[in-house]
Amino acid sequence: MAKVKGPTPQSQDFSQWYLDVIQMAELADYAPVRGTIVVRPYGYALWENIQRVLDEKFKETGHQNAYFPLFIPMSFLQKEAEHVEGFSPELAVVTHAGGEELEEPLAVRPTSETIIGYMWSKWIRSWRDLPQLLNQWNNVVRWEMRTRPFLRTSEFLWQEGHTAHATKEEAEAETARMLGVYVDFARNFAALPVIPGQKTAREKFAGAVYTTTMEAMMKDGRALQAGTSHFLGQNFARAFEITFQDKDLKEKHVWTTSWGLSWRIIGGIIMTHGDDKGLVLPPKLAPIQVVIVPIYKAETKARVLDAARALEAELKALGIRVHTDERDQYTPGFKFNDWELKGVPYRVELGPRDVEAGTAVLASRLGGKESLDLKALAALMPEKLEAFQQALFERALDFRKAHTRVTDDYEAFKDAVAEGFALAYHCGDAACEKAIQEETRATARAIPLEFPAFGVLQDDEALKETSEGRCVRCGREAAYGRRIVFARAY
Amino acid sequence: MAKVKGPTPQSQDFSQWYLDVIQMAELADYAPVRGTIVVRPYGYALWENIQRVLDEKFKETGHQNAYFPLFIPMSFLQKEAEHVEGFSPELAVVTHAGGEELEEPLAVRPTSETIIGYMWSKWIRSWRDLPQLLNQWNNVVRWEMRTRPFLRTSEFLWQEGHTAHATKEEAEAETARMLGVYVDFARNFAALPVIPGQKTAREKFAGAVYTTTMEAMMKDGRALQAGTSHFLGQNFARAFEITFQDKDLKEKHVWTTSWGLSWRIIGGIIMTHGDDKGLVLPPKLAPIQVVIVPIYKAETKARVLDAARALEAELKALGIRVHTDERDQYTPGFKFNDWELKGVPYRVELGPRDVEAGTAVLASRLGGKESLDLKALAALMPEKLEAFQQALFERALDFRKAHTRVTDDYEAFKDAVAEGFALAYHCGDAACEKAIQEETRATARAIPLEFPAFGVLQDDEALKETSEGRCVRCGREAAYGRRIVFARAY
Repeated sequence: MAKVKGPTPQSQDFSQWYLDVIQMAELADYAPVRGTIVVRPYGYALWENIQRVLDEKFKETGHQNAYFPLFIPMSFLQKEAEHVEGFSPELAVVTHAGGEELEEPLAVRPTSETIIGYMWSKWIRSWRDLPQLLNQWNNVVRWEMRTRPFLRTSEFLWQEGHTAHATKEEAEAETARMLGVYVDFARNFAALPVIPGQKTAREKFAGAVYTTTMEAMMKDGRALQAGTSHFLGQNFARAFEITFQDKDLKEKHVWTTSWGLSWRIIGGIIMTHGDDKGLVLPPKLAPIQVVIVPIYKAETKARVLDAARALEAELKALGIRVHTDERDQYTPGFKFNDWELKGVPYRVELGPRDVEAGTAVLASRLGGKESLDLKALAALMPEKLEAFQQALFERALDFRKAHTRVTDDYEAFKDAVAEGFALAYHCGDAACEKAIQEETRATARAIPLEFPAFGVLQDDEALKETSEGRCVRCGREAAYGRRIVFARAY
Repeated sequence: MAKVKGPTPQSQDFSQWYLDVIQMAELADYAPVRGTIVVRPYGYALWENIQRVLDEKFKETGHQNAYFPLFIPMSFLQKEAEHVEGFSPELAVVTHAGGEELEEPLAVRPTSETIIGYMWSKWIRSWRDLPQLLNQWNNVVRWEMRTRPFLRTSEFLWQEGHTAHATKEEAEAETARMLGVYVDFARNFAALPVIPGQKTAREKFAGAVYTTTMEAMMKDGRALQAGTSHFLGQNFARAFEITFQDKDLKEKHVWTTSWGLSWRIIGGIIMTHGDDKGLVLPPKLAPIQVVIVPIYKAETKARVLDAARALEAELKALGIRVHTDERDQYTPGFKFNDWELKGVPYRVELGPRDVEAGTAVLASRLGGKESLDLKALAALMPEKLEAFQQALFERALDFRKAHTRVTDDYEAFKDAVAEGFALAYHCGDAACEKAIQEETRATARAIPLEFPAFGVLQDDEALKETSEGRCVRCGREAAYGRRIVFARAY
């Protein structure tokens, strides 16, 4: 009988473990064009759950979906100086179409600020046309040198929100509001304990006044930027002449924001929760929350399958995503391993003796088995899934806290970023930040911040403190009024 | 006060009416790159409703969503001879990426048979891996000379289903099953009376053994291909060496299908149901099913808005998509026109005297107004929306029947296709089909067929008849054993 070969152990090679798990759990596969992937049904079902939750939150906060084109004239990208500098090295360019060379080459969108800015300049006339609160779910292309499934792919799926406002205050509130939506999603759905904060000038989005971010810690101690929300000021409004007549009858430039979250969060979920057996998925996003594995021989098959299907129907009626594994060609042991690899939170083992006794064995992907009354089992599951979700978050938060070090000494800082996050003072000078990266491979990930009005709060007291100090590397007076997060990052 | 200027009347210039309605109802706008459009929130909400209905049907019939890459190596497209011949004139090609010229140019996908075929050749090993039942919602690019919003755009959104099977019979059943899903969607959700059928060899998909289709009639009498389902035989299986070991231990090529429906169906909805006032949307897909227009002066505003919001809450609780138009800058008359332009099925007019009397005026987009008991109104709406949906379908079916002529005479045929469909015999010779197109601008749209097992049935007795005859143009013996549908097409 076939046996599930496990992934490379995390302790042996974390990076290989990640690639193994993605392939073996059938989340994705490599596609023929460099840096592109195919997202297979199990991986796409996870993405659909992510989309469903976020899309609902975007609509609740007043946003509407739209669709802007894939192709952007190269000249558009050049209108915002910082923007083109940031993105032009990564562009894929269409030069021929319909059998002819194009007069102007077309960029395949790396992000859509420019084309949306252009359309807004046509649509927005008056303060009554504001705010514009748009989002789109689409694909974008960024040609990067080193690629890795979900984390950095030449083409990726994401959502990009774009909003335009009459005032700076409104646009800044929107930037914070959407970071709040992301943080809520990360913590309460993906079970990722993220640190919300602001990027340093060196790390901000090309074209933004400032970028807010949420940073997650992977099990190898490295940081993953899991979502960003940008305050763009009037940079794009000036580049594209997006003006409106205000209530005071004066013509003014709008204030814009953009915010994006991509399928890289799937990489974050894998590397935050997974273990040597494979994936561990948060119940709120898992394509399958409970898998039923019936155990039978020829003479007991009908009875066991009947019981399994009855249980499946009960769980479905409770809104639980359940699957019964009726594959005949595999042993129960193979199936246990297979569903552990795929990270299903709970497994029900149901054999002929269980059916006779009116019991079933419930195994948690976080460990532990218990025998339960078959009749009572379904009703227990919503609470158990909730507890699993909570436990996953707590475990990840404990891990992050255990791998975060407050340090004012550069040697200790180097040790800290070798295995996790360092909380340290920094002078704010981009050259000094660059030197830190060259010397330690760590970058400034976030200046921790809170926006209580939008639910953006820290989950660790150490991240709330405001204080003064001296730069951990150069000893100059620290900027930011607090220690900031440094880490090696994906 | 601003007044809504209506679209160009249909009788004056149907084509301009179509373009006017799209812009004025804010469904879409022209984007800067030739042939591309921006789908605005109102248009995208319509597309989301289409997606939601179809996606559910695809999942009910056992399909799973996945995502395959945008970029396809040019060499892949060349593997299936007919396929590359059909698509290469329309390709957009990426030649540069990441600042360098690529070794092999990349096609921006016009459709995904080739890349999916390539992946299947890696994934499929045994009969146990079959069937593969995949779908993806994505964007594709086809560089066409003459473009028109929704109907023919350089880039468009669609879904493309791709399946692989162990036997010819299974693949042919799948082809018919998915045509059945499309026909059900068209008739019962989009209220489009479509003629299901098979394409002639001249009109089939490039690379298919045969193509099934559903053809709708627009209000100018022209045909719109609203969705197609292709039986691909083993053409792509051979081109990409997609083989499996069957139960008899023999290595065999799989049998594949593909089926697609795009946002052009929005064009079909516009041109089937719209009138000189603008859009008329089928309730099952309308972003807003009921709009409430409160009518008030300063002293009655609070009372009227209270009643409007209470009604809105009642309708929402019934699952009805409802919007209250509280815009202060417009008159009620302007709002009536505006929501008529946007095709909202029902409008509730609510003034201070209505509130006092406990009544409201209900106006149907299909004409007619009635005063109703305000307390009873909400409960009446589900049935009224259902009746509206049905009336819309019946009206379109009557129109199609009135503009379809059975003819065995070529001069009468020419008259018929100038204002609708012609049902005529044809010899089956592609050269004769081409001559008909050159002489009349009409093409063979469908050989009417039925697959009762999959709900594919005709809605007109004239389309069910099998009979023998002589080609309407050349007089040779007719092929197909029945009259087939000819029309000028979008």
